[in-house]
Amino acid sequence: MLYAVTMVVDLPRDLDEDVRTETLAREKAYSQDLQRAGQWVSIWRLPGQYANLSIFDVADHDRLHEILWNLPLFPYMEIEVQPLAQHPSALPADQR
Amino acid sequence: MLYAVTMVVDLPRDLDEDVRTETLAREKAYSQDLQRAGQWVSIWRLPGQYANLSIFDVADHDRLHEILWNLPLFPYMEIEVQPLAQHPSALPADQR
Amino acid sequence: MLYAVTMVVDLPRDLDEDVRTETLAREKAYSQDLQRAGQWVSIWRLPGQYANLSIFDVADHDRLHEILWNLPLFPYMEIEVQPLAQHPSALPADQR
Amino acid sequence: MLYAVTMVVDLPRDLDEDVRTETLAREKAYSQDLQRAGQWVSIWRLPGQYANLSIFDVADHDRLHEILWNLPLFPYMEIEVQPLAQHPSALPADQR
Amino acid sequence: MLYAVTMVVDLPRDLDEDVRTETLAREKAYSQDLQRAGQWVSIWRLPGQYANLSIFDVADHDRLHEILWNLPLFPYMEIEVQPLAQHPSALPADQR
Amino acid sequence: MLYAVTMVVDLPRDLDEDVRTETLAREKAYSQDLQRAGQWVSIWRLPGQYANLSIFDVADHDRLHEILWNLPLFPYMEIEVQPLAQHPSALPADQR
Amino acid sequence: MLYAVTMVVDLPRDLDEDVRTETLAREKAYSQDLQRAGQWVSIWRLPGQYANLSIFDVADHDRLHEILWNLPLFPYMEIEVQPLAQHPSALPADQR
Amino acid sequence: MLYAVTMVVDLPRDLDEDVRTETLAREKAYSQDLQRAGQWVSIWRLPGQYANLSIFDVADHDRLHEILWNLPLFPYMEIEVQPLAQHPSALPADQR
Amino acid sequence: MLYAVTMVVDLPRDLDEDVRTETLAREKAYSQDLQRAGQWVSIWRLPGQYANLSIFDVADHDRLHEILWNLPLFPYMEIEVQPLAQHPSALPADQR
Amino acid sequence: MLYAVTMVVDLPRDLDEDVRTETLAREKAYSQDLQRAGQWVSIWRLPGQYANLSIFDVADHDRLHEILWNLPLFPYMEIEVQPLAQHPSALPADQR
Repeated sequence: MLYAVTMVVDLPRDLDEDVRTETLAREKAYSQDLQRAGQWVSIWRLPGQYANLSIFDVADHDRLHEILWNLPLFPYMEIEVQPLAQHPSALPADQR
Repeated sequence: MLYAVTMVVDLPRDLDEDVRTETLAREKAYSQDLQRAGQWVSIWRLPGQYANLSIFDVADHDRLHEILWNLPLFPYMEIEVQPLAQHPSALPADQR
Repeated sequence: MLYAVTMVVDLPRDLDEDVRTETLAREKAYSQDLQRAGQWVSIWRLPGQYANLSIFDVADHDRLHEILWNLPLFPYMEIEVQPLAQHPSALPADQR
Repeated sequence: MLYAVTMVVDLPRDLDEDVRTETLAREKAYSQDLQRAGQWVSIWRLPGQYANLSIFDVADHDRLHEILWNLPLFPYMEIEVQPLAQHPSALPADQR
Repeated sequence: MLYAVTMVVDLPRDLDEDVRTETLAREKAYSQDLQRAGQWVSIWRLPGQYANLSIFDVADHDRLHEILWNLPLFPYMEIEVQPLAQHPSALPADQR
Repeated sequence: MLYAVTMVVDLPRDLDEDVRTETLAREKAYSQDLQRAGQWVSIWRLPGQYANLSIFDVADHDRLHEILWNLPLFPYMEIEVQPLAQHPSALPADQR
Repeated sequence: MLYAVTMVVDLPRDLDEDVRTETLAREKAYSQDLQRAGQWVSIWRLPGQYANLSIFDVADHDRLHEILWNLPLFPYMEIEVQPLAQHPSALPADQR
Repeated sequence: MLYAVTMVVDLPRDLDEDVRTETLAREKAYSQDLQRAGQWVSIWRLPGQYANLSIFDVADHDRLHEILWNLPLFPYMEIEVQPLAQHPSALPADQR
Repeated sequence: MLYAVTMVVDLPRDLDEDVRTETLAREKAYSQDLQRAGQWVSIWRLPGQYANLSIFDVADHDRLHEILWNLPLFPYMEIEVQPLAQHPSALPADQR
Repeated sequence: MLYAVTMVVDLPRDLDEDVRTETLAREKAYSQDLQRAGQWVSIWRLPGQYANLSIFDVADHDRLHEILWNLPLFPYMEIEVQPLAQHPSALPADQR
């Protein structure tokens, strides 16, 4: 099941510098693990914003929520979720 | 250059049935040609809406506009364009 | 998989009276078939509006879209879809 | 009388850890008591958000407000209330 | 049970003049019957708009919807419903 | 002159407990004095919100602002004001 | 009593040319009569829009509504009304 | 050149009392100097809000910005600017 | 005086084809005359939309409105106007 | 590639005065370097706001994001990005 997810980050100014560095490192590792696992299919930066648009491919809503809820940056994020269905005009992968 | 594009279709009720059928057929062919060309990278249906989220990979803003402006359904669409930049956490394709 | 779906109906004033009656009858039958099948779990009227809030329980996004796209009133509806995940405070059905 | 209620939680970052733990425990117990009493009919998580959609079945507006006002998390919530009326297409429970 | 209801009227320009006159007369009679019955407690005009703010006192959501759905102007209205609960600072009627 | 006024309260979490208690007591007394004077005609709670909808009957805009500006909770409120004119369908009080 | 009023005009494209000319002439005469009477204090064009911002000085809400309701262009307008109270920093007219 | 300007004030709760008193005094003097100079033509209070609607008559955009940027309360304000052009129905001042 | 102006075009589907062609030709000539005159400084297409962002350099609000009001496409446009003042960080033209 | 970028600045009230002065100086130098390089084509102040509208001419989305992300004021800004394509009515530079 596919989902488009928009995440907007708002780090508090007074966040301890070490906490910040360590949290960002954990966020990156967490994201890349899920990318390797094929569940976090794409991640793009929205230019001019501390934000990303991502595509997830997961078993169901519960798994999606589990992934997002455990993001190290979750407490500092606004997240929007958009389910994606198959489009009748989409070419099968092997015809591209 | 990547762009996320949302298209919402609103076909007039009184559109001639033949015009409608023919327009939708041209739209599908137009989209699939661009998918084959690697410029229309992905297209997903937004469930419950006559709408799609698409990813385009084109040379520049002018080419993107040319593609969208010439969509057979363009006169019946509301379109939103979001540029996408590279994300520092994105894994290179060969590491996935 | 559960979804909360809001449907707002806007029937054109000049819709032929017979078409209208017949469409509404088909809509009702269509909805009740899906209710009997356990896929359209709940449907409530929003007071003062030609609109409903519904809960669907279906296999995936594609099935949800298929159901909504084929609603006899689909051409006259604005639809919003909200995926629903399990809540950690929800009691199991057998403890209620 | 039925109501759809959306609750969005925004816990302050500097909330004392013990206060937080104890408040969340009370919130869960409070919710489950009302679920057992049949007044808090359903509660679902909105994926990617610290938020829920709930259905309440209570005597009247005053009782609904009493329940919501006394939520342990009430001071940290944005709440929206939508009354729900019977829908003419809804099947009686015994026909499902 | 009390509700604040906002109704915004948008009569189509091409409405037949007789239909219009007759509909407005029925609307007024319908409203005044419910005012006499104590169910439509107040109705005020919003200055500069073809709109009103009204207070209803009815048995439940279903009765409110029944009243609004049967307004002769219902097909030409946008309606918003806000439930009203008792306020702890409100003086009892006999102390005013 | 009648006005519908919506007040949404947002008390700061760190407000001194005594200040809070005393402010709420003054707010209640202030409101009830104006209710007895016939200027604060109605006050209702919006269920699920720390908010009210009120009807005021005062001499003019200046008097309305004077009342609202001097609310003990004014510094913690978002206030919206809607003037109300007479509606042509409203029954005279003695015909209800 | 002062009010700031914003009027946005949306004339239907198919309005008969004579009706249009005659309506606009009546609108202008109607406005200028009220300007001479001191009730329509100011009228300014919003650049780039078929719209105006106006200041009215009238007895009460009912008179304001009567004026606006009877505008020849009323059926083609969206109108917003903002009451204006005296500002404590405003200089008396004779000190300017 | 005329401009309608809306200013909404949000004084921080923890502003030092002396700073507050002194800032408000400077704001009032600053406003009245510009009123005497004919550049700040009108200022009205929006009832129920710590806000005003003002009319400015200044040489150009740069002068308007200079005035607003130097408001003693500028750091605590949300400001909206609307240019005003001459309206074809406006009576010349000497005909009023 | 500089202004940023956003124009969104919505041509009616049933516009006569000749009228359409002739109107678009006049629009282009009208725009290019003003570009040559140095009053319409820039015009860019918003990708995916029948819309443009333009910069105007004109004497005052009245001249801006005169230009926009007389656009051949004005009856089919939504227009937003944003005044632009000098920025303290802007380099003088001769230092670029 | 051209982009219209709107930046709204919200400096925290408690920012250290030296940090503030130094940050603003760096911001100005940073902006002027990019203006000299022809990448930050225009910058205008929005009157009444701590905000600017800018035009950028850069290689691609990634370069735009790099520039914006490294603005000394970036942590205190809300930024909106709008790609700009060529407009068919735009005169070539040498014909102006």
